[in-house]
Amino acid sequence: MLKGFSVPLTPTGESALVNLPPWHYSSDCIAIEYWAEPAAIAALLPPGLKLDEKSNGRAFFWFLDWQFTGSNDELTDPARYQYREAFVLVEAVFDGTPINYCPFIFVDNDAAIARGWAQGFPKKLGSVFQTRSFAAPSAAAAPLAKGSHFGASVAAHGERLATARIQLEEKVADPSKVFNRPTVMRRYFPQLAAAHQKTAAVDELTLSLTDDLAIVDVWGGSAELRIPEVQGEDMHRIAPLRVGRGYRLGMAYSVTDLRILKDNAA
Amino acid sequence: MLKGFSVPLTPTGESALVNLPPWHYSSDCIAIEYWAEPAAIAALLPPGLKLDEKSNGRAFFWFLDWQFTGSNDELTDPARYQYREAFVLVEAVFDGTPINYCPFIFVDNDAAIARGWAQGFPKKLGSVFQTRSFAAPSAAAAPLAKGSHFGASVAAHGERLATARIQLEEKVADPSKVFNRPTVMRRYFPQLAAAHQKTAAVDELTLSLTDDLAIVDVWGGSAELRIPEVQGEDMHRIAPLRVGRGYRLGMAYSVTDLRILKDNAA
Amino acid sequence: MLKGFSVPLTPTGESALVNLPPWHYSSDCIAIEYWAEPAAIAALLPPGLKLDEKSNGRAFFWFLDWQFTGSNDELTDPARYQYREAFVLVEAVFDGTPINYCPFIFVDNDAAIARGWAQGFPKKLGSVFQTRSFAAPSAAAAPLAKGSHFGASVAAHGERLATARIQLEEKVADPSKVFNRPTVMRRYFPQLAAAHQKTAAVDELTLSLTDDLAIVDVWGGSAELRIPEVQGEDMHRIAPLRVGRGYRLGMAYSVTDLRILKDNAA
Amino acid sequence: MLKGFSVPLTPTGESALVNLPPWHYSSDCIAIEYWAEPAAIAALLPPGLKLDEKSNGRAFFWFLDWQFTGSNDELTDPARYQYREAFVLVEAVFDGTPINYCPFIFVDNDAAIARGWAQGFPKKLGSVFQTRSFAAPSAAAAPLAKGSHFGASVAAHGERLATARIQLEEKVADPSKVFNRPTVMRRYFPQLAAAHQKTAAVDELTLSLTDDLAIVDVWGGSAELRIPEVQGEDMHRIAPLRVGRGYRLGMAYSVTDLRILKDNAA
Repeated sequence: MLKGFSVPLTPTGESALVNLPPWHYSSDCIAIEYWAEPAAIAALLPPGLKLDEKSNGRAFFWFLDWQFTGSNDELTDPARYQYREAFVLVEAVFDGTPINYCPFIFVDNDAAIARGWAQGFPKKLGSVFQTRSFAAPSAAAAPLAKGSHFGASVAAHGERLATARIQLEEKVADPSKVFNRPTVMRRYFPQLAAAHQKTAAVDELTLSLTDDLAIVDVWGGSAELRIPEVQGEDMHRIAPLRVGRGYRLGMAYSVTDLRILKDNAA
Repeated sequence: MLKGFSVPLTPTGESALVNLPPWHYSSDCIAIEYWAEPAAIAALLPPGLKLDEKSNGRAFFWFLDWQFTGSNDELTDPARYQYREAFVLVEAVFDGTPINYCPFIFVDNDAAIARGWAQGFPKKLGSVFQTRSFAAPSAAAAPLAKGSHFGASVAAHGERLATARIQLEEKVADPSKVFNRPTVMRRYFPQLAAAHQKTAAVDELTLSLTDDLAIVDVWGGSAELRIPEVQGEDMHRIAPLRVGRGYRLGMAYSVTDLRILKDNAA
Repeated sequence: MLKGFSVPLTPTGESALVNLPPWHYSSDCIAIEYWAEPAAIAALLPPGLKLDEKSNGRAFFWFLDWQFTGSNDELTDPARYQYREAFVLVEAVFDGTPINYCPFIFVDNDAAIARGWAQGFPKKLGSVFQTRSFAAPSAAAAPLAKGSHFGASVAAHGERLATARIQLEEKVADPSKVFNRPTVMRRYFPQLAAAHQKTAAVDELTLSLTDDLAIVDVWGGSAELRIPEVQGEDMHRIAPLRVGRGYRLGMAYSVTDLRILKDNAA
Repeated sequence: MLKGFSVPLTPTGESALVNLPPWHYSSDCIAIEYWAEPAAIAALLPPGLKLDEKSNGRAFFWFLDWQFTGSNDELTDPARYQYREAFVLVEAVFDGTPINYCPFIFVDNDAAIARGWAQGFPKKLGSVFQTRSFAAPSAAAAPLAKGSHFGASVAAHGERLATARIQLEEKVADPSKVFNRPTVMRRYFPQLAAAHQKTAAVDELTLSLTDDLAIVDVWGGSAELRIPEVQGEDMHRIAPLRVGRGYRLGMAYSVTDLRILKDNAA
């Protein structure tokens, strides 16, 4: 009997990139609110999603330093299970409900790619960094305090895809006023057999389900964000026309399930 | 209309990890023949494959420096499309036919992961190196000539998974006597919805189809191979009990199709 | 006029790996006390240092997640200036004073190599990871609390060089009882001109000077440490015969100066 | 007795980044002739070098895939000793003699950094790629033939620093008409002791000495080269105003010595 949630399956399951949930996550995050061209957002939406006309092209660009653990103390193997991520969430509507949709996402870890594809996150490899906040006081510590600067960046294949910078101004009393939309993804797995290449084997709209969500230590402030045009990528099509607030926060949750909203392959 | 063979799909298809075939490949390869414990090989085979009793546990460990191109001159963007790979092929039988099956494979590139998963190669990220043969004469050149030494290695997450070394002895007149089995893979994509986690969305035995296969400049010689036990992997279960010949060769082919041998999800 | 503390020097100094001090650092650290073969430690000491006979081969293996900044808000460019480090400090004696000496050190950043070599740290490139403590509560958070597990590892060129694990037991009231020796290094820069290859251009014993040293949130607990033998390295010669306590702490300091203890090139 | 040409020195010398010469190299190279602003080149020259007024700002941008070996069959450990490099050579004059000078250079290997600094190459870490020529015929093979396209790039810290592309037109009968100037470097090692930070410990103009130089299979053709402005680097100050011919070649040599042309520290 071969074991593993993802490939490769083996008798022990030890080699599998991912084992069965629960999957537990904790992170430090930088998120930048911005507005892109609404038509460019609309052009990225899969069947079943519509542009949120009230959003005016609103989006968030996120950078996350993640720690993952499953059922086997994976957090003590940080070379395998700690990772960094950057993604953009654009505002859209599913079946009358305002949601966020993820068209672009980058991580630096293969287990994160495997979990992400199973959920519907279109992950690619990237190199992601964000300024960290350290406890030992120093000009290098970046404390969670008014005036602290944080930078963040994502690159892939030696091209810088996004660069951000925020300056903390004040604690955010009620983060649910900022971060309150459910996240919808497109779970997609193609077919290579010649007769079926234009039809996916799996093509579903999915809804991210997060247990025990915790959002802590949220600070807001001023922000900068650049998404330059580079060869071989087209994320710049939703580059910022205008940048809003920047946020720095901690976030944790667990994943044990996924809701399938719509089967587009059927 | 969103384009791309794989995620992420976009209006231009430029961001997609993979676009529609044809996919063209050329490579330099080191391959080491060896024998593992037959029961350990049998334990890795998916439903539909049987141990090849005549093989006595025969397997090949491959290291490949690949160059990929599609329809857009991708070979001129080597930061994105050049990659290195290491994998093991174990001898098995499908429906009475002797075949090779790939239980473990590592690459250093995300487009290669996406193409591999679509075919059935259970790819994980790794760091792969092999000695190259350079044209300019030097003690560092490793020419294709009797006595030349080549080394190769694969590591993941800072653990060395395999190390090999060969010494060239003579040209191989008829490579088809060495490399002649078709390759079978398991195309596998899981479900995360709680009620279906133990059933895959896609679970197929597939057969690799290679157009315009070219195998050139094949040299054989003596070989060493080590597959040590490391935490978080279990490839060592098919470590060599005995090592055979080592080979150094060039190989090219194109991929435009995939044959589905058996649907194990149905 | 060309500018820069290190190469490359340019009219603006912008390309230089390192600019003039002050250099400010803050970090999260895991440190493992252990005992190696005293003769193996003695064999690594440069001229001017002697084995500390009272130490019985005592050493500390450190893992550090660093954030660096200079005079130009470098901390907002984490892709360039955030880095990870692993090193061993062995106990020795200089001129009658008990000191720590650094024979092996690995970092994942070139600016850190350049600063290190200028001080006398014999830095090589490595891939370093340690479990982090996140604020958002989760099984993945590794809080600073009794019972938390932390892991750490360092690898170079795909070989795992050291793996550690600690379990927190209690806060350490007085860290100065644990970490109290000055650090001595060998600042060394060779000559390639044929007649002088066996004599270094620079060969000095140096003393690390740290301004505004802060050590915070020190926890102690049980520890494990492995330093395996790998091809191409000889750090295993001071592998642990016995492992003592493990520590997790925050540390910050600034560097503006270096004391030259002894000129061995003269 | 501690051994090693570079740090770290150990009783066996096994850990040293570099051991005593001879150092043997073989490579595949792409080189792009171009012209930069002469004043920008002049501003980069160290004391002792002058702008070559006849060159009009001529420079070459090189990409190299290197294989290194020393006295211990290092070429069979490609994870440690194979590396990639990109650098620019600008035309200048030393003591009346036309030379090339290297103001910027990037490599992906620490042993290459250590050897380079000892010679006077101001190496930083980068990620370097060039299209390779494979023997097995394929659209992906990039043969050495009229019409073949080759691309190359260098990035550091997730910023693309240069991108090039050439198209082969014809073999170059006499490469010595193209590549014929000696290479001069600045060997530079700073002091950190506060009183001496503005004076280097080592500051020499050096001349590269190459034994058994072989230049083979030289092809010329049309070329493109971009050196964009990025934060934290200033190589763009010598970006191309005009691009000349592109070359693809093999090159090998050995290093056993270095000539010191001038001591600027004295």
